[in-house]
Amino acid sequence: MMFEQIPTILQKDCSLKPGCPILAGVSGGPDSLCLAVLLQRSGYPVIVAHYNHHLRPEAGDDARFVAEFAEANGMRCVGSGADVAEYAEIHSLSIEEAARQLRYQYLFAQAQLWRCQAVAVGHTADDQVETVLMHLLRGSGLAGLRGMVYRSLPNTWSAEVPLVRPLLGIWRSEILDFCAANGLQPVQDASNLERFYFRNRLRLDLLPILESYNPRFRPALWRMANILGADYEVLEGQAEAAWQECQRAVGEGYICLGRSALLAQPLGIQRAVIRRAVALLRPGIRDIDFAVVDRATDFIASPPETNQADLFAGLKIALEGELLWLRRVEADLPGVQWPQLLPGQEFELEIPGNHDLSDGWQFVCELLDDPADARRQAQANADPFQAWFDLDSLSLPLLVRGRRAGDTLSPLGMGGHSLKLSDFMINCKVPRRARARWPLVVSGNHIAWVPGFRLAHPFRLKVVSLRVIHLSLL
Amino acid sequence: MMFEQIPTILQKDCSLKPGCPILAGVSGGPDSLCLAVLLQRSGYPVIVAHYNHHLRPEAGDDARFVAEFAEANGMRCVGSGADVAEYAEIHSLSIEEAARQLRYQYLFAQAQLWRCQAVAVGHTADDQVETVLMHLLRGSGLAGLRGMVYRSLPNTWSAEVPLVRPLLGIWRSEILDFCAANGLQPVQDASNLERFYFRNRLRLDLLPILESYNPRFRPALWRMANILGADYEVLEGQAEAAWQECQRAVGEGYICLGRSALLAQPLGIQRAVIRRAVALLRPGIRDIDFAVVDRATDFIASPPETNQADLFAGLKIALEGELLWLRRVEADLPGVQWPQLLPGQEFELEIPGNHDLSDGWQFVCELLDDPADARRQAQANADPFQAWFDLDSLSLPLLVRGRRAGDTLSPLGMGGHSLKLSDFMINCKVPRRARARWPLVVSGNHIAWVPGFRLAHPFRLKVVSLRVIHLSLL
Repeated sequence: MMFEQIPTILQKDCSLKPGCPILAGVSGGPDSLCLAVLLQRSGYPVIVAHYNHHLRPEAGDDARFVAEFAEANGMRCVGSGADVAEYAEIHSLSIEEAARQLRYQYLFAQAQLWRCQAVAVGHTADDQVETVLMHLLRGSGLAGLRGMVYRSLPNTWSAEVPLVRPLLGIWRSEILDFCAANGLQPVQDASNLERFYFRNRLRLDLLPILESYNPRFRPALWRMANILGADYEVLEGQAEAAWQECQRAVGEGYICLGRSALLAQPLGIQRAVIRRAVALLRPGIRDIDFAVVDRATDFIASPPETNQADLFAGLKIALEGELLWLRRVEADLPGVQWPQLLPGQEFELEIPGNHDLSDGWQFVCELLDDPADARRQAQANADPFQAWFDLDSLSLPLLVRGRRAGDTLSPLGMGGHSLKLSDFMINCKVPRRARARWPLVVSGNHIAWVPGFRLAHPFRLKVVSLRVIHLSLL
Repeated sequence: MMFEQIPTILQKDCSLKPGCPILAGVSGGPDSLCLAVLLQRSGYPVIVAHYNHHLRPEAGDDARFVAEFAEANGMRCVGSGADVAEYAEIHSLSIEEAARQLRYQYLFAQAQLWRCQAVAVGHTADDQVETVLMHLLRGSGLAGLRGMVYRSLPNTWSAEVPLVRPLLGIWRSEILDFCAANGLQPVQDASNLERFYFRNRLRLDLLPILESYNPRFRPALWRMANILGADYEVLEGQAEAAWQECQRAVGEGYICLGRSALLAQPLGIQRAVIRRAVALLRPGIRDIDFAVVDRATDFIASPPETNQADLFAGLKIALEGELLWLRRVEADLPGVQWPQLLPGQEFELEIPGNHDLSDGWQFVCELLDDPADARRQAQANADPFQAWFDLDSLSLPLLVRGRRAGDTLSPLGMGGHSLKLSDFMINCKVPRRARARWPLVVSGNHIAWVPGFRLAHPFRLKVVSLRVIHLSLL
């Protein structure tokens, strides 16, 4: 990677517009000084932003140094800081994580304030290798193994301001040479040498060991990340298409997917769709555990008897007929896809007449005057929410109500054989949580129709029927 | 991973048919003994095959032990061997690679002979982790990072007999427990402890170090490989579709791809298509270097002035118009997509008449009697291999010949302005290697038509034309 390629990387890989300001996070170390200088030379107005973590005695000196550097180079400089150690304690975070959160929050707030086109940070090829190695050690999929990217938007910190990392292809040694050649005298962060930090141990201890197995290990890992990044994009493209195809409903705290559409996808895409769903339901989570995704794909391939399972930390998966529901345990699922009575609701059907249920469902009742035509219609019908009845077999008025203990049904097609309504509902896979308030059409003491499923044998349209009513639930 | 899952893994992941024989490669170590026993218990007739590498003094004992094991378990046993060290020296291979080649060649030959449905080998989850780690250290894409697979067909050794690895999800420690619990007393291969072998160094030295960073490193790497395996399948599926879409011609030693179709693919797929092409042209190569693929994708995105480049070791890439040619340097490219004269070929056109060129191309010459209709046809025509001429402007007979030094052309649409034929051919991107033998239609000393490109101004159809000839090259 040559420095001459930086203008191209800024425009092509980082999608930056020359001439429009960029906010550069500058610690005062070699990477960030080099970053600010390269941005300026490539024709971008630079706002230098320094965040003081108050973690080291010389932190104040660093802040002054950065201000002087900006001044000397004709760049605007902004700065702030906080007691990171205290913040870490209050929020039970590691010092590293607390520093990261405070710093990025500040950078993005300033970028917004100064209307910058991006926040730029000085991550190098070495940082990339360390990041990928960290993901490798922890265990990761493509999303982690591809490492950091030149441009990320949306990112953890903003949906509008991109985070760019123009130096991702430049090695630290090249940056040190650049600083020396350009008279930059960066500060040294002594904490980079402390083995207390996991990342430092990787850099100082593990990477040299790995290089003893392959002296070209760092560039090899860098290239691997680069290659996998492009593979990840392909996969994400296909996952996005599958996501659109499989999605049946999305709401506050739940996502509904079509099971057969999902099963038709290759396993890698099924997993990507599950990761998307989990990320949407639990946006805080940075890495989604393999085991969670596996549990979900296993559930989808062979649902348990109960048709539901816990995924992890308050996330549940359930199957209702063909629909998969992923939801936070506290989420209300929508009823809109089924007809449901209000609690305790019941009413008499007018013939003819219209009756509204909740969620836009409506009973429509018509009297038909041509029984032969009605029979033809009934035979051709494929919609389970329509039914034709022999009016003279029914006891009027017809009542619409929810189920009651002891309800039975003689389903059409079972020769008049009768069974418990509860067993019928289980057999027909009426969604469990919809059973209690499922609207039933009742004639006298007999259930005449379970809309969406079956009408009752005694009230069916017969060859001798003279008067016909047509019920539909729309 | 539980041993109870083995029958499912055999049937589902390895696609094996219970009851049909399998050839198991058995060294006498714990993994392969466990493999043979599990296969037999799952209902597969097992043929035990042992290959004696003659590398250790106790090699003969191992062979006898395996024969006794087979006998005691009612399995047929076959065996052979060779002096691996000598083979390695003759073929300049590492001992490991020589042993591997000889052993697998033998196993697959025996599998064919005994009509076995597969060759099974005893690679374990630990082997998988070591393999993935080796690829990681060397630098690899998805194909390497996914590690070994349960079933591979075609494989390096056979296009018909699959290689299966049923124990890929079982850890060595579980296998040792299995052996102890089942009274199996495997031989110990002392060479497993020699740090001379790269793989042994990984197992004995590097893996424990990595586990000091994450005690669950091995299972994490195993899961990573498993996840990436599914991602790889998705990518390969898309690459296959792209391969079909981009491919324009394939022949002995060359592959022709459509450039714009390839450029329309995401980078990850472009790379996969290039890898396929290289693998087809150089089937011996096990890993295709990142740099080679990058060189090719760079070439495709921005071809150099010369329109050609060396990829590596005798593999070339060239651009001709819209067509990308990847070829072995010694391969003859086909001419079939262009009309070409034989060397030195020239002939007079009969009017009317047909004239065959090589590769199925044919000149057809017709006299038209309705000039107004001919003008309409000429105006509506989009095929550059058809042209209409004012017969009275031409000097007959028309000659078809290749280019000569000093040829010039007054292309239609340039107001009679004349330029060198060689410049015209460059401007119009007539493929370089097709220029010398491109058929030209010549009237007297003037070129009347460069089929596929342009006819000459003086001979164009005019409003006053009375007699028209129509030439087409089919």
